[in-house]
Amino acid sequence: MKLLSGAIAAVDHGGSLGRASALFPHAPRPFVDLSTGINPHSYPLFDLPATALSRLPEAGQLRELAEIAASAYGAPSAAHVAAAPGTQILLPRVASLVRSGKALVLGPTYAEHARAAAIAGHAVAEVSDFDALGEADLAVLVNPNNPDGRVIEKARLLDLAARLRAKSGLLVVDEAFMDVGPIEQSLAGDVGAGGIVVLRSFGKFFGLAGVRLGFALTDPLTAERLDAQLGPWAVAGPALEYGIRALSDAGWQEDMRVRLASDAKRLDALLGKCGVPISGGTSLFRYVSFNDSPSLFSALGECGVLVRHFAERLQVLRIGLPGSEAEWQRLEGALATWAARRKDAPKEFGQ
Amino acid sequence: MKLLSGAIAAVDHGGSLGRASALFPHAPRPFVDLSTGINPHSYPLFDLPATALSRLPEAGQLRELAEIAASAYGAPSAAHVAAAPGTQILLPRVASLVRSGKALVLGPTYAEHARAAAIAGHAVAEVSDFDALGEADLAVLVNPNNPDGRVIEKARLLDLAARLRAKSGLLVVDEAFMDVGPIEQSLAGDVGAGGIVVLRSFGKFFGLAGVRLGFALTDPLTAERLDAQLGPWAVAGPALEYGIRALSDAGWQEDMRVRLASDAKRLDALLGKCGVPISGGTSLFRYVSFNDSPSLFSALGECGVLVRHFAERLQVLRIGLPGSEAEWQRLEGALATWAARRKDAPKEFGQ
Repeated sequence: MKLLSGAIAAVDHGGSLGRASALFPHAPRPFVDLSTGINPHSYPLFDLPATALSRLPEAGQLRELAEIAASAYGAPSAAHVAAAPGTQILLPRVASLVRSGKALVLGPTYAEHARAAAIAGHAVAEVSDFDALGEADLAVLVNPNNPDGRVIEKARLLDLAARLRAKSGLLVVDEAFMDVGPIEQSLAGDVGAGGIVVLRSFGKFFGLAGVRLGFALTDPLTAERLDAQLGPWAVAGPALEYGIRALSDAGWQEDMRVRLASDAKRLDALLGKCGVPISGGTSLFRYVSFNDSPSLFSALGECGVLVRHFAERLQVLRIGLPGSEAEWQRLEGALATWAARRKDAPKEFGQ
Repeated sequence: MKLLSGAIAAVDHGGSLGRASALFPHAPRPFVDLSTGINPHSYPLFDLPATALSRLPEAGQLRELAEIAASAYGAPSAAHVAAAPGTQILLPRVASLVRSGKALVLGPTYAEHARAAAIAGHAVAEVSDFDALGEADLAVLVNPNNPDGRVIEKARLLDLAARLRAKSGLLVVDEAFMDVGPIEQSLAGDVGAGGIVVLRSFGKFFGLAGVRLGFALTDPLTAERLDAQLGPWAVAGPALEYGIRALSDAGWQEDMRVRLASDAKRLDALLGKCGVPISGGTSLFRYVSFNDSPSLFSALGECGVLVRHFAERLQVLRIGLPGSEAEWQRLEGALATWAARRKDAPKEFGQ
């Protein structure tokens, strides 16, 4: 168990081109940004009505979004949905739903969960054993996990939720990457029992991270408490427009799942060909854990291909999907450069 | 002093066309919406770069926005600025900056302040006397006030802030309508002393309420605490783009202040001609307080002109500015209808 009491400080994240430029000032531009798990094939952009920017968001439109989100994610009803300007801003609010106590985060995982629980006043620790979560007042896990893709089965989650509920605790399951499955392990349909918050992220799967839209699926009373914290007009006009259209477009979603699975296989083949072993992931990113990760990170970065590394676990990388064919070519070229250098200098780079 | 302990329930607001349709089902459409204080002449819309929607907002862009906001609003530096997806979502976070205690709101005013303070765990009361605010742990006022436009002088605010600061209290000044003055009474430049939060709203003056952008101006430590609560990427891509461009466009702002002042005078003349007395307001709305407000509200509504009424103060109306010439004509026609009816039936409508 790793104590995280000092975890309120800001966390490093992928997806910053400013940071990429500072790390690799001589890299060819533009950067190929594979440092996030955001879908590079965004939902088709469309012209927003002027009123989406000029007028206050309408309550009726927010209700429509909640209904569509409940249907798309499999929550029991719109009353089980709280919509927010991104999942991120929900984290401290969700962590504050239970009295300050012991928060356990199943890790390693997305670092903001520990930070949010600390902000909410909990004593936070990271545990690597799922069964240890039963000791928590607030238990948090990401399913499938970021960055390694580990999946916890629904039956085990429901058991844990029941244990926590019995002592007025809370289970938070961040399903930020559940859009690409395995959907049969989602708890979205089970939130009515209480003591569960499922988080769903709009921006990742729909490739619209700038729009800022996320959801808490939970029992109606808890959804109301979250709504009260967010206040009216929390979701911006553009997020309402894109959320309503994209979440109700089941055809696009189904096609995209197939496409991303195929792209992920292509990425596996490319990495495998260059001697990079795949240790896990989802269809939106692959997880790499081997001794040569630091040299791979640097070599790709110098070629202008940015992947995600982790300051405290140097052997780990997360690699997102290239978008255009040109991006695939640049990744392939960068990987080949690294592989050739590694072959020529086995002592320096090791195996 | 009016106790507001049950104030957590949702509050009625202007700006909902759904609500307007329910109230006035037979009114000609579209509604002329004068129920908000939002500028009908929005900052010119422009095409957003696709990355504003597809990518995570960049930290560098957020810093740029904070610098521009500090300059536009007159805060000491970017470190004194916390940017948020609308001022509304900041209210409970700001109210939570002080330990649960006694919150006093100078009223009548924008109802969400009392609700936010109650959510934050304070015992909330509304006071009508400015001097009573000194008894609070958390004192909240809107300057200029919504809906009556009352202005509290800066010297009195600074005295109050010093009193509150001495006992670790907090003064919150919501300057949502300070863009149209009187700017010499703004506390934006004085937040460095500590114990003060000034709230500024982007959407009202720039006519872009759907974008969701608001600011807390405060001492750097408090700004950091608010930033930590909001987390990274709190401000959406479109809000960053519009905020940076519009807040740095001093020419547009200056021209708009002149235009709004002129429009407000035109509104005064129109209302006066029809026998509606003006009791206060700002250049973004006028405040009406007389016995015939209920009949005026209904008559305008039946003509498809929506103004803001207040459930608990029936004699009060807030009337925003029409935008297009057609909207001015519809307001004039609706007012004439009401005035004629009133003249013909003096007993029914009274004086």
